[in-house]
Amino acid sequence: MIVLFTDFGRGGPYVGQMAAVLAARAPGVPVIDLMHDAPAFGPRPAAYLLAALAERLPVGTVVLGVVDPGVGTERRPVVMRAGGRWYVGPDNGLFAVAARRAGAAEAWRIDWRPSALSATFHGRDLFAPVAAMLATGAAPPGPPVPPQSVDRPDWPDDLAEIVYVDDYGNAMTGLRAGLLAEEARLAVAGRSLARARTFGDRPPGTPFWYENSSGLAEVAVAQGSAAALLGLAPGAAVAVG
Amino acid sequence: MIVLFTDFGRGGPYVGQMAAVLAARAPGVPVIDLMHDAPAFGPRPAAYLLAALAERLPVGTVVLGVVDPGVGTERRPVVMRAGGRWYVGPDNGLFAVAARRAGAAEAWRIDWRPSALSATFHGRDLFAPVAAMLATGAAPPGPPVPPQSVDRPDWPDDLAEIVYVDDYGNAMTGLRAGLLAEEARLAVAGRSLARARTFGDRPPGTPFWYENSSGLAEVAVAQGSAAALLGLAPGAAVAVG
Amino acid sequence: MIVLFTDFGRGGPYVGQMAAVLAARAPGVPVIDLMHDAPAFGPRPAAYLLAALAERLPVGTVVLGVVDPGVGTERRPVVMRAGGRWYVGPDNGLFAVAARRAGAAEAWRIDWRPSALSATFHGRDLFAPVAAMLATGAAPPGPPVPPQSVDRPDWPDDLAEIVYVDDYGNAMTGLRAGLLAEEARLAVAGRSLARARTFGDRPPGTPFWYENSSGLAEVAVAQGSAAALLGLAPGAAVAVG
Repeated sequence: MIVLFTDFGRGGPYVGQMAAVLAARAPGVPVIDLMHDAPAFGPRPAAYLLAALAERLPVGTVVLGVVDPGVGTERRPVVMRAGGRWYVGPDNGLFAVAARRAGAAEAWRIDWRPSALSATFHGRDLFAPVAAMLATGAAPPGPPVPPQSVDRPDWPDDLAEIVYVDDYGNAMTGLRAGLLAEEARLAVAGRSLARARTFGDRPPGTPFWYENSSGLAEVAVAQGSAAALLGLAPGAAVAVG
Repeated sequence: MIVLFTDFGRGGPYVGQMAAVLAARAPGVPVIDLMHDAPAFGPRPAAYLLAALAERLPVGTVVLGVVDPGVGTERRPVVMRAGGRWYVGPDNGLFAVAARRAGAAEAWRIDWRPSALSATFHGRDLFAPVAAMLATGAAPPGPPVPPQSVDRPDWPDDLAEIVYVDDYGNAMTGLRAGLLAEEARLAVAGRSLARARTFGDRPPGTPFWYENSSGLAEVAVAQGSAAALLGLAPGAAVAVG
Repeated sequence: MIVLFTDFGRGGPYVGQMAAVLAARAPGVPVIDLMHDAPAFGPRPAAYLLAALAERLPVGTVVLGVVDPGVGTERRPVVMRAGGRWYVGPDNGLFAVAARRAGAAEAWRIDWRPSALSATFHGRDLFAPVAAMLATGAAPPGPPVPPQSVDRPDWPDDLAEIVYVDDYGNAMTGLRAGLLAEEARLAVAGRSLARARTFGDRPPGTPFWYENSSGLAEVAVAQGSAAALLGLAPGAAVAVG
């Protein structure tokens, strides 16, 4: 299975062009659109989101991750293997959190280049063909590099920030809920929020936080939009206490 | 074939996480995104829309329907079989109209539970695995229940309401056009609308109703938005006469 | 592979209903959502966009193209073969540019009709079944017609207009960048723009044009929206000079 995680949005031909390359080069391999509204141009918040989501994907999955503000510059293209899953994309930290959490990771530089490489769409021209190679059993097309080189040592283990706001206005943080005490409160936008188990446990209109279905601490309001109520957007700071 | 009908929207990882579960558990079975903007939190209007759409799906299709405002509460998870198609989802009326129209329906309670069941995402954790079981030939994982128990006897056979407004501003009702007389008029937003066969039959800007491609009576305007012109939104009342 | 190119948008059941027909009638054939926000009701700009995108699709691909403001009127349904790819859809010019660029094209009128043909959704009822026939090796279901008949002789070889604005505000023209001189300037919205190789080559906020990943001249702004900055929308005129 090849799983797409990008900030391309659903509009335009971009996702479809990647999918066409994958269908041609990895026939019979399912391609899943996991997310195309990852934090735009934000490899750092995206890395915490991806690490949480990837943990629930089957072992053997190839994650094609493209949040790549540096496309066309000298950032390195990379393959990583961690927790039994492959990751293909730009070496800009997007896979750093998944690598660190998996402990033993391996990494390879991508030396392969297509006959025609556009300046602006490496997702289609470079990363999709490499994902297809891995999904069909080929080895990473380049030499191994130290796995630590894909990490970002200055990034924290968990990110005390809003990393994603969904269509309902629920605001995901980069904090793993399982590491927080049952009685932990989250301070956000001047409010101190208690934990709930689920939406039904709080009266409508009252903000709270809970462990979302991907294991992240998420700020929510029953029958309402936490983002609208609290003025939350990606990047907003959160404090545990 | 597994067909998804939800109110999740396209944003975020939700649809993709369900699709990943289906790809892993029902390999080779096509998964179709029929609709992810079903009436949000509205099993009643959604039931009329789904009944119309499902009739045109191949016999043997597994419909994975998730419009589930009660997730995390005690509402029952259910499998239903009607008209040769399977339905999997919450027992909140979402499948009531399809069941009633098919006449002979069968239903089962879902007793199976996954090893990890999130409080808020039964679509991924409970309903998708059960849909994969059915699509790969397994029996419903639970005991039969009376098929009448999935019906909502207080719901009408057809719903005289706007149930969906599409991106063009066309407003679908919950009324089957085939049951309305050729000369029937629809009263909506203070206007009395005549029937047309198609958009070309009316001058631009003039609202009318017609039998849409799913067999429902739909309010439309040639080269315009009926929803904008008439101020229509889901839930708006319609009267036949 | 069957590739969908439509102006349906992603909302509602329309794309899913086509996909369900394809899955039932062409089992095992991958279906790719290339674009569902093609210029609405605009076969002319859509034709230039499609010609650029199709060139990068594998030989043998079946393009199911539906930008069809004349659905329900007498416009002819058509199959075309050009550059080793099939095209299925309305004969309204949508395939004219692809046909002309491929040189030798063949065309067939579609005489086949389904048992039930809705007045408004030929994409699902007529074109999808025919695309499935071609993708599974059947011949076009109708007699050959002169390939010139699908051309629009009054349309230029390249279109000096904005044909698409993506979610980032980048504005694609209908001009092939490879035919423009390196030093060519594009006059658009009262500005004369120079060419850049990629986004990193220009300071943020400065508009430029470049060859996009589909080979079209595209107006862009590094870290900004060209459409917003210059007030560009589909149909805006562009001049080379």
